[in-house]
Amino acid sequence: MPVGVKVNPNIVEMEYAVRGPIPQRAAELKQQGMATIACNIGNPQALGQQPITFYRQVLRMLEIPAGIERERVLNGLRRRHREVFQHMNDADFVSDYVLDLCDDILSKLETGLGAYTESRGPMFIREAIAQFVDKRDGVTGSNGIPSDPEKIFLTNGASEAAKYIIDMLIADGGDGIMIPIPQYPLYSAAIKKAGGRQVNYYPDEEDGWTLNRTALEEAFTDAVARGTNVKGIVVINPANPTGAILPEQSVRDVIDFAKEHGLVIIADEVYQENLYGATWLSFAKLLENKDVPLFSLHSTSKGFCGECGHRGGYVEVRNPPPIEGSRLSFMEVMYKQASVSLCSNTPGQVLTYLMVQAPKEGSEPYEQFVREREAVLSDLHAKATMIRKALGRMNGVECFGRTGAMYLFPRLNRLPKGTTDFDYCMKLLETTGLCTVNGSGFGQREGTHHLRIAFLPPKTTLEEVLPRWIEFHNAYVAK
Amino acid sequence: MPVGVKVNPNIVEMEYAVRGPIPQRAAELKQQGMATIACNIGNPQALGQQPITFYRQVLRMLEIPAGIERERVLNGLRRRHREVFQHMNDADFVSDYVLDLCDDILSKLETGLGAYTESRGPMFIREAIAQFVDKRDGVTGSNGIPSDPEKIFLTNGASEAAKYIIDMLIADGGDGIMIPIPQYPLYSAAIKKAGGRQVNYYPDEEDGWTLNRTALEEAFTDAVARGTNVKGIVVINPANPTGAILPEQSVRDVIDFAKEHGLVIIADEVYQENLYGATWLSFAKLLENKDVPLFSLHSTSKGFCGECGHRGGYVEVRNPPPIEGSRLSFMEVMYKQASVSLCSNTPGQVLTYLMVQAPKEGSEPYEQFVREREAVLSDLHAKATMIRKALGRMNGVECFGRTGAMYLFPRLNRLPKGTTDFDYCMKLLETTGLCTVNGSGFGQREGTHHLRIAFLPPKTTLEEVLPRWIEFHNAYVAK
Repeated sequence: MPVGVKVNPNIVEMEYAVRGPIPQRAAELKQQGMATIACNIGNPQALGQQPITFYRQVLRMLEIPAGIERERVLNGLRRRHREVFQHMNDADFVSDYVLDLCDDILSKLETGLGAYTESRGPMFIREAIAQFVDKRDGVTGSNGIPSDPEKIFLTNGASEAAKYIIDMLIADGGDGIMIPIPQYPLYSAAIKKAGGRQVNYYPDEEDGWTLNRTALEEAFTDAVARGTNVKGIVVINPANPTGAILPEQSVRDVIDFAKEHGLVIIADEVYQENLYGATWLSFAKLLENKDVPLFSLHSTSKGFCGECGHRGGYVEVRNPPPIEGSRLSFMEVMYKQASVSLCSNTPGQVLTYLMVQAPKEGSEPYEQFVREREAVLSDLHAKATMIRKALGRMNGVECFGRTGAMYLFPRLNRLPKGTTDFDYCMKLLETTGLCTVNGSGFGQREGTHHLRIAFLPPKTTLEEVLPRWIEFHNAYVAK
Repeated sequence: MPVGVKVNPNIVEMEYAVRGPIPQRAAELKQQGMATIACNIGNPQALGQQPITFYRQVLRMLEIPAGIERERVLNGLRRRHREVFQHMNDADFVSDYVLDLCDDILSKLETGLGAYTESRGPMFIREAIAQFVDKRDGVTGSNGIPSDPEKIFLTNGASEAAKYIIDMLIADGGDGIMIPIPQYPLYSAAIKKAGGRQVNYYPDEEDGWTLNRTALEEAFTDAVARGTNVKGIVVINPANPTGAILPEQSVRDVIDFAKEHGLVIIADEVYQENLYGATWLSFAKLLENKDVPLFSLHSTSKGFCGECGHRGGYVEVRNPPPIEGSRLSFMEVMYKQASVSLCSNTPGQVLTYLMVQAPKEGSEPYEQFVREREAVLSDLHAKATMIRKALGRMNGVECFGRTGAMYLFPRLNRLPKGTTDFDYCMKLLETTGLCTVNGSGFGQREGTHHLRIAFLPPKTTLEEVLPRWIEFHNAYVAK
């Protein structure tokens, strides 16, 4: 027998409910033949969401550079021999716009998809991200502060970036980072792993999960009283798991709060395209000239892109703080971390480039791109509305906040005494096949119960399962 | 001014020479117009190595599943209208073998490249890896112990896997991991970041960088005397940076040593295809029925694949040890780490699948695949030989060990007094454009000087630069 090994207790104790016991039970049930519906995770293409054709056309072409010329030849043959190709249609061919773009990307990448890039990612992609951020935030000329490509890192999804930052900020066991409750468990897990302290703050559920100075100050004061050295604050906007979108004042409150207490802001803004008509403002925009350190995360996994498997993402940094006791800058130390991982994956990098540079208006792929984008977003919106409606027919269920991101986080007010939302979600899964995550997996105010549902399954699936959920629910709470 | 922030000192102090000051200087010189030659890093496609067509054909097809049928249509049109396609050739079309394989992969992936997979990677890929390992090690029927797909994790390159394991093993500041000197600085960096102790052991340079029990026991005893709790040993075979390939007895010695002291073996075997005719034996094969925990790393970045940018890799685990004081198994805790990262990138996963499952003998892509594979490997071998020959013409330079991996690690015996290998490499870069890494970046016996050169540039480049290096060298040491 091998001897028992003492393993880093922070990792042993770390939890990640999104892939925890309920999804694991769902995997078992699926293997036993049950039709399960994976609403536990924001993984849209696993539930039938189609990739954006434009993105995939480019990725496809880049894998074999010689294939670009071949497509040009095929386009030429098709023009000259209409009859030969009569059973194929435009969708079977690649537009000159895409082919030219691929040539352009390959010339800028220099070494194709097969080589390690600069550890932060290629400069031309970081420049495109900076331009995207500036355009998004209305930075022009002297209006606003431009994003700096030197302070952008491409990463394997946004998670990797979050871990880099948290690993740096936690210098010893007394250091803490504020996270919203409920939160996306990446943050609690990363803080736990780094050996730091999780400092909870509580958005106001009944005010649509908004934030205010009082709630932030309370959490901060309480942490300081326990001897915690608070270093930063995580804000997820639009939020995961609640789906809520913060109003301007909440964002401003966080910035002022961070400035007053010398905190770093980690702004998880990966759902910035999942707005469904609501207004959203970035931290970078509202930061203005305040010298608060800001790390803004974005990803190709969400929005209308939904390319989770390709693991594209980036972090954009503003006002990186000086490091106490070192001549190295914050960016230099972050660069060392990226170096040890060599670079993020190149298809994910290119996808990030495409995400921040949509096809030009009027170009060949433009119309289809817009159509596909709108289809994804309006479909998500419609599905959120269907679920909200169903929640309205469940006894003792309330759901607060504007609908953003990919999630609803209803509160379950009338669970039978002695049962938890974990019990409820497990039973819901076993009865209906619907796999959600218990609110306790994200953290919640003591005495409350919730669940998170990703509004991703096809409408037909929802039409079928929602009545069964309502029935299940009303029977469950009547016990 | 933002206030100075105290950053995790382990990360501030961490070093990674492969992307350290000399490569950074090379980047500056390149920007100033100098023709630099990046021999600092094992990044073959950055230096002109061509990707294996078969791999890229599959990756290309998977990005747009509808494109598979389109290729079948094109193949049919070509058969019927030879004259229309007369200026295109076979290489412009995709074989039925590849198209069928793509259909098969997509049906097994279920959700395409765009969805998160199981955190360890899809089961069918882990099964293929297990089969590859068994075939490689001659496991058949009752002969040998088969690899277990449940104990395989796909990761973004092998580096991610190494970090998972090291982060788990370092439970407190007294824990240490043995690493060879010289070593690949991923290991020193990961141990440093985790807050553990680096325990150096010294392969015998003049005996071709082989290992023996005496050297291992000395290092162990010395570490224990300093109060270090040694948890594991890293072995890189074929080695980075020395390129040396361990003989069977060295591998057996490590296994016996690890067994006697209850250590975990981390076997970095990413260069297992870079052998140039030499014999190599895996740790898994020689482990036989000994219950020593083994973590074997492999990657798509090296070998003849050389797909660094795609970030494919895996770790295969044997005899995972029980965890002291926890009911969770080692694999369960490792799974939690993978979960927090969601999954590795899907193109990298598929590439790993292809790496462990070459096209079948006699299939359409087989001949080209073999031709390309042999071309890459024989080219690398020829380039290593060219550099070895040049080293032989440099005064006071010796280079030990069988040639494996992608590196040579010559010893510089006659550096002028007061100068270091760092000075030498910097001057070599500034004089000739050749970017190597100083031996001190990998660690070396006190009083010795080395450099690592990756034998990757095109032969024509080597023909041009090697005489200039010889000239530089002999003048430098004559000072």
